Amino acid sequence: MSDTVRMTLDEVHRLAFDACRANGCSEAQARAIADTLTSAERDEAKSHGLFRVPFYVKAIAGSGAVPDAEPRVAGLAPGIVRVDGGMGFAPLALQVGAEPLAERARSQGIAALCLTNMFHVSALWPEVERLAAQGLVVFAFTGAISYVAPAGGSQPLYGTNPMAFGWPRAGKAPLVFDQASSASARGEIQLHLRAGKRLPEGWAVGPDGQPTTDPETALAGAQLPFGGHKGAAIALMVELLAGALIGDLFSYEAAEADTNGVGAPQGGEFMIAIDPARCVPDGNREAQLAHAERLFAKILEQDGTRLPAQRRYDARARTEAEGVSVPRSLYDEVRALVDAPR
Amino acid sequence: MSDTVRMTLDEVHRLAFDACRANGCSEAQARAIADTLTSAERDEAKSHGLFRVPFYVKAIAGSGAVPDAEPRVAGLAPGIVRVDGGMGFAPLALQVGAEPLAERARSQGIAALCLTNMFHVSALWPEVERLAAQGLVVFAFTGAISYVAPAGGSQPLYGTNPMAFGWPRAGKAPLVFDQASSASARGEIQLHLRAGKRLPEGWAVGPDGQPTTDPETALAGAQLPFGGHKGAAIALMVELLAGALIGDLFSYEAAEADTNGVGAPQGGEFMIAIDPARCVPDGNREAQLAHAERLFAKILEQDGTRLPAQRRYDARARTEAEGVSVPRSLYDEVRALVDAPR
Repeated sequence: MSDTVRMTLDEVHRLAFDACRANGCSEAQARAIADTLTSAERDEAKSHGLFRVPFYVKAIAGSGAVPDAEPRVAGLAPGIVRVDGGMGFAPLALQVGAEPLAERARSQGIAALCLTNMFHVSALWPEVERLAAQGLVVFAFTGAISYVAPAGGSQPLYGTNPMAFGWPRAGKAPLVFDQASSASARGEIQLHLRAGKRLPEGWAVGPDGQPTTDPETALAGAQLPFGGHKGAAIALMVELLAGALIGDLFSYEAAEADTNGVGAPQGGEFMIAIDPARCVPDGNREAQLAHAERLFAKILEQDGTRLPAQRRYDARARTEAEGVSVPRSLYDEVRALVDAPR
Repeated sequence: MSDTVRMTLDEVHRLAFDACRANGCSEAQARAIADTLTSAERDEAKSHGLFRVPFYVKAIAGSGAVPDAEPRVAGLAPGIVRVDGGMGFAPLALQVGAEPLAERARSQGIAALCLTNMFHVSALWPEVERLAAQGLVVFAFTGAISYVAPAGGSQPLYGTNPMAFGWPRAGKAPLVFDQASSASARGEIQLHLRAGKRLPEGWAVGPDGQPTTDPETALAGAQLPFGGHKGAAIALMVELLAGALIGDLFSYEAAEADTNGVGAPQGGEFMIAIDPARCVPDGNREAQLAHAERLFAKILEQDGTRLPAQRRYDARARTEAEGVSVPRSLYDEVRALVDAPR
């Protein structure tokens, strides 16, 4: 028996949907989660694919997530939309908030979306890409469980705190990046541990605050921000935007709230969308996008470069034709969540 | 004779103002430039202080900057304000745009300011701080002359592309960071050259694209982004925001336009301001700011940490009482620009 299972993207979606439904999710919550996980499998962003299904299920069983929550939308100001996720999951809250955000960005020029009271273990790029594909410039920020030390410090405080950005391209998938403000993903440290490999310098400190390349010591200590104090400043900015600004939890508060150690943090997300055509007097979006293409060409004429998201888009072209490959152990684990809900 | 000149902040302002006036600046342009340079001297951000006066003068003499330009403000959308700098300098354009930006942030919840057609050699933090001190959350982005290689590349393309962020604090100066997306400031490489010192690893590549720690080779080659591809993604985002989005030059276009090698780039700036009270249903700004203070306290309880801008604020307390110390050679150079305009 092969170690992997070949699946079409439709099969991935069905499996994720069924697992969520079997564990109490409403149709709408289950579909939104399945959409997001399938996007990740499609782009071979495996750590945000089917791998996350157990996190969602654990959040329902262990953290009080409300699997049939109906997100509620409110306009707080002409440029501000709020979605109260009702302690459900981020994907549905994001889907519900996307259209009002886009509408207001077009009518006001710039608008923000405050997503609160939800559980968030998703990547940021799927929603950023969807909005950028509608011609908008988009930012997104979210916190996490606190694993990362502040600049100069050695104890966990910040989450891995990703920030994402999207820029629309005429006739092409948008340019999107979605990057943690930690030097590495937590999962990368766990992979090094499993493989018995040392970490690169600069990823982590141990519980004693001293730099370490030992994965076990690192996991007991604190991850470091990318790029020293500059990455730490970005991590701090993300905390403020996804926490204090929108009235949701900081990463350390999410960690404190995660009393069962589920690792599926309650937390908010903050997004900004801008209609580029409203930022120039002649409203000539085509000229703006053509101008950006000249910069992208300048980047790509240098050897060794590529644009952000290109690796995902290459994977997408492949998997849409050929389907995806899922480790059998993961397939079996998710399958079991369908057949025997927790 | 001492190598340095002691000056009060009023004397700094007067000297900068006189040098700008003597070289053709209108009263308004000269006062705004002097305000900005004095803020930098006050905070001991020396590289943006009187040191910059010759850049302004060279831009007038060699780059076609219009020293008596009157910036024009236009509303492009309910949330978008544009300032056309008329090819004058950034400080006046920023002063003119700040109030409309703040007004719209309060009325719309979020607003953006597109600053175009100007010459920009200023730091971002003075305006970010001023707006954050009014209770707003603020972002700013600007390009520069192209010195920095894209991710994976080895030729200069991006500017040092700073991004700044400000968060208001009740009864205290705001939390502000203003950081280049390059690993180091260009001036730091020049200082290493003058001191005959090697550079740290990771700052630059030579013209052959190979990593170098030799300052001269680095200056002939390309600076590197901070934190590898993540810093490069931020540099790219800044190019798009301060260039294509607002219809102004990319850093490489500013470099091409700088035919006389003045090093005072023509370029735009993009700012976003958010009224935090409009981002929560109860509009309770005090609660938002108090929440943030709990995070700041958590940061500061770790040994070795400090908040962004604290070094500047400490310097400010000192210089407001004692004045500043300026190298005599710099003082003489600026003085000469008053007595014998170029």
